[in-house]
Amino acid sequence: MATTKTKVLIIGASGETGRSIANGLLEDGGFEVYSFTRPASAQKPQLLDLAKKGLIIRQCDLSAPEEELAEALRGIDVVVSSVGPADQLSQLNIATAAKAAGVKRFVPCAFITVCAPGGIMWLRDEKEKVYNHIKQLKLTYTIIDVGWWYQIATPRLTSGKIDYAMTVANDELVEGGKTPSAFVDLRDIGKYVTRIIVDPRTENKMVFSYNTVTSPEDIFAMVEKMSGEKVERKHVSKETVMARVEEGRAHSETYPFDASKFTLRIAAEYQLSWGIRGDNVPSYAKYLGYLDAKELYPDFKPITLEEYIQELLSGTATGIYTDRISRIY
Amino acid sequence: MATTKTKVLIIGASGETGRSIANGLLEDGGFEVYSFTRPASAQKPQLLDLAKKGLIIRQCDLSAPEEELAEALRGIDVVVSSVGPADQLSQLNIATAAKAAGVKRFVPCAFITVCAPGGIMWLRDEKEKVYNHIKQLKLTYTIIDVGWWYQIATPRLTSGKIDYAMTVANDELVEGGKTPSAFVDLRDIGKYVTRIIVDPRTENKMVFSYNTVTSPEDIFAMVEKMSGEKVERKHVSKETVMARVEEGRAHSETYPFDASKFTLRIAAEYQLSWGIRGDNVPSYAKYLGYLDAKELYPDFKPITLEEYIQELLSGTATGIYTDRISRIY
Repeated sequence: MATTKTKVLIIGASGETGRSIANGLLEDGGFEVYSFTRPASAQKPQLLDLAKKGLIIRQCDLSAPEEELAEALRGIDVVVSSVGPADQLSQLNIATAAKAAGVKRFVPCAFITVCAPGGIMWLRDEKEKVYNHIKQLKLTYTIIDVGWWYQIATPRLTSGKIDYAMTVANDELVEGGKTPSAFVDLRDIGKYVTRIIVDPRTENKMVFSYNTVTSPEDIFAMVEKMSGEKVERKHVSKETVMARVEEGRAHSETYPFDASKFTLRIAAEYQLSWGIRGDNVPSYAKYLGYLDAKELYPDFKPITLEEYIQELLSGTATGIYTDRISRIY
Repeated sequence: MATTKTKVLIIGASGETGRSIANGLLEDGGFEVYSFTRPASAQKPQLLDLAKKGLIIRQCDLSAPEEELAEALRGIDVVVSSVGPADQLSQLNIATAAKAAGVKRFVPCAFITVCAPGGIMWLRDEKEKVYNHIKQLKLTYTIIDVGWWYQIATPRLTSGKIDYAMTVANDELVEGGKTPSAFVDLRDIGKYVTRIIVDPRTENKMVFSYNTVTSPEDIFAMVEKMSGEKVERKHVSKETVMARVEEGRAHSETYPFDASKFTLRIAAEYQLSWGIRGDNVPSYAKYLGYLDAKELYPDFKPITLEEYIQELLSGTATGIYTDRISRIY
């Protein structure tokens, strides 16, 4: 049956979201999975791991001319992009090439929390430029946004017991931590993607994929209860978040993108969107036109927050961004 | 039953689209119809005509502070905006005020042909800024776009017989005039609006309202056949349209809006969108997420193109933009 497999090409397969997607597709078995990888990244251990599982690596420079990109995309059914914040606009040429190559569906790099475009989150607005370009091309697309990852949602324990899987201290609670928000296990994103990209109902639609809706404070309380340890809370006011947003914006007004300038901004604008505005909830996603993955796939069994915390406490969880040291959220 | 009437406030009631909407709502009988009118416009004959039919005029400056706008909107169920191209961004404050006043549905000024945002049509992109603001407010909205008006779609006859109702010569055919496009009778827009704004299916949706899909060349041929006269055709190439677009853009890069600079650009970009790109068709509207008014209201009896041309030839049609002299198409 190899000839009937859907050919999916992932752009950004070595990132956190990209690996989740690659693993989801490879484990599903119904896909032939390719990756565009720039020569400099071809030897990344994350990619070599995926290659062992069946990922086919095509070396390709994302900034290559359109014709070259189109040639490299020939025969691909679905493109899924999970490029980093700095590379969003590199998707413009890729989408044009995908149209020329007859790609049947283009999944641009969304994979963030729910937020309206137009000045709240710089990262969201970068993505909107790509979406608009796709729509002008009349290219079949699906936009997949996700809950906030469990993997950056749990707080540190003072004993240090779960530091092995903590990228950041994550001890902040915005506005008392009571704002409801959707959360997802990073590993489930790829599993959602395997369903969404072959589903005719999701053509030219946005889909919100999340596992549960809860609040940061409820997650802190759950970690305390399950660990038997006290969790430290650093309360952050709306005013503090807004000051960070203003500072982040003031430092990132110029292109080209510079990660050191934009990280503060991205982090602060996330807190503004899901922490202050309460954007990252299914009802708002529905208002904005998203389909709800829970309604599309009622049989999908997501990893529960409790299961993830249990893993974390038993020492078997996997940390994220392990190749970086900077504060992320 | 007066107390159960839906209270609708129109912004821009004296314009072509605004009058169609006001007439539609007033003739329907199910609405209490208000208009925000700036003091300078209160004595416009178009408004006085509508007032005779029942329009209630509230003098209000659109640039008033938000609190004042909110006070003036108190008790209004639906706001429908049909402001001119230069006033699109005045809707930002009005939307904020509408949210504060508890307005149940906000219909921003769309009412143009179908086009994706992001650099094709300046006018479309101005509107997108307003839509994004509405979405950030989480205000219930409906976006209504429409076909190209019959009233500016028929060509001049060399006899001059229908000049009485012609604003422009409209003798141009872009790319042979073969690109399919949706058309509407200006008078039907208001009738569509009366249905759409009380329809729960259209909440937080875009709706495409049009009467028929045909091509400019087919309209020219229909006018020839029905009049027995020859119609002059001025063929315009893609290159000519693109040169106009470039010239229009070069002359309109600065704010504030200056009609004399933007009219060329708006006209050229319309030709680019519906004439070259073929954007203004139901299939593309559906791709972009629009509901189709024909599917929502299968019993709606629109004025046919043939009926309009018959009116035109019999001397009973009404011209548009009669208070202006510049070329509009």
